[in-house]
Amino acid sequence: MLRSPKPLDAPTDRPLVLLTNDDGIDAFGLAALTAALDGLGTLAVVAPMQEQSAVGHAITVRDPVRAHAWPYESTSGEVWARAVTGTPADCVKLACQKLLPRCPDLVVSGINQGPNTAVNVIYSGTVSAATEAAILGFPALAVSLCSWDPHADFEAAGRYARRLAERVLADGLAPGILLNVNVPDLAFDEIRGVEITRQAKARWEEEFHERRDPMDRPYYWLGGEFINLDEGPDTDLAAIDAGFVSVTPLQHDLTAYDHLADLAAWTRTNP
Amino acid sequence: MLRSPKPLDAPTDRPLVLLTNDDGIDAFGLAALTAALDGLGTLAVVAPMQEQSAVGHAITVRDPVRAHAWPYESTSGEVWARAVTGTPADCVKLACQKLLPRCPDLVVSGINQGPNTAVNVIYSGTVSAATEAAILGFPALAVSLCSWDPHADFEAAGRYARRLAERVLADGLAPGILLNVNVPDLAFDEIRGVEITRQAKARWEEEFHERRDPMDRPYYWLGGEFINLDEGPDTDLAAIDAGFVSVTPLQHDLTAYDHLADLAAWTRTNP
Repeated sequence: MLRSPKPLDAPTDRPLVLLTNDDGIDAFGLAALTAALDGLGTLAVVAPMQEQSAVGHAITVRDPVRAHAWPYESTSGEVWARAVTGTPADCVKLACQKLLPRCPDLVVSGINQGPNTAVNVIYSGTVSAATEAAILGFPALAVSLCSWDPHADFEAAGRYARRLAERVLADGLAPGILLNVNVPDLAFDEIRGVEITRQAKARWEEEFHERRDPMDRPYYWLGGEFINLDEGPDTDLAAIDAGFVSVTPLQHDLTAYDHLADLAAWTRTNP
Repeated sequence: MLRSPKPLDAPTDRPLVLLTNDDGIDAFGLAALTAALDGLGTLAVVAPMQEQSAVGHAITVRDPVRAHAWPYESTSGEVWARAVTGTPADCVKLACQKLLPRCPDLVVSGINQGPNTAVNVIYSGTVSAATEAAILGFPALAVSLCSWDPHADFEAAGRYARRLAERVLADGLAPGILLNVNVPDLAFDEIRGVEITRQAKARWEEEFHERRDPMDRPYYWLGGEFINLDEGPDTDLAAIDAGFVSVTPLQHDLTAYDHLADLAAWTRTNP
């Protein structure tokens, strides 16, 4: 059975929704997302076999990847699933180009355990999976719960993921745009609604812990404290602090458009 | 000697320049960059011990990293160097926070073998090292040679890296901005100068090659063809095609500012 896994049956009269994450196929947040989207259409789970937090937009080009048929149960029965020996961006590429019988109508990544806000967006595998979907031309959401508590309650995040997924399936998104959704760690009834936000300016006050291994050789472990540098009322951090779900539209172009003219003048003075 | 490597001596009367890359500490492009910047100041090489192409902005948070003293010879003698068991972004973080005796005045990443233009910027470890430096507050350049030929000539790319490094040391860069430099595969005299550019809109027509291992189990390998979708004269791809060095200012914020108002209206109609 593992040698001859069944292909996915995805009838065209209902949406095909691809689910992925960066915490790995066994993560509770992915199970919560799958349960929350139950009945929305044909669900397909293609997620990393191992945790891939902070891999950013890594893709695997020097090595092959494999896709293992994976038993995956959700609310209304078995969900077609594959565990991929690669990154979140690999999962989306491989699913869309090879594993799914047709293009997905929506890609949802999450639910991540911990926020993906401000400068952390660029490190996030959860967001990068959705960014990859947007690059490939598919509407996409990244969903994160603002809690690192291993006993965190994903219910509210799941309900907002469902609501936004329905909206995006109904209305679409502009080409190349994905939505980065961060849900505060509150009960559903305590959440005040949705705010459209920009990434806050922030930084990490980092500290590498220097330790010694049993052979007395040094090693370093990244730690640090997150510092918000942005007092703006329209940021992802401000929305979450005020009890709203933060929805930030993202795109992948990193060009600093505001600096093109200055730099052109700079090079003209001394080419 | 490997157990007690000498710390770097970095007198404050000359610039401290950190060099890194994503092709790994043994890459010829890094040696070419180090030679090109010889005499510019105190050089320090902190680069991945293993090739890290396409790792994007991955950082290592779940595992420790190590930094090994590394013998590194350049034009005018030995250069202080460390090989790090991590990603390019890890190298910059660890160097700036722990390994260097003071903050670098400039971070240069490269010289990458192959262009980092258009959509490829987001996958690039070379660029991510410079992005990380910009996030940390240091002026930074990413330099790539537009050739995958293992016998490619890095001379022109090295000379432009030197010229731009001197300019940035003299004039600085706006906070948070890095320069993504792509040098055409031409002799120095054939290059027509520098153009300030934006990232071209482009995509990959991807294909996963499905193969069988000796046990007859399937595996997939990412391949594909790069498609330029952008006829604009002001793109990185257009500059390189016309024989110019492309210099693109980048920043790390992925917010799609043009879509904030539309989305706010969208959520108001159905919160």
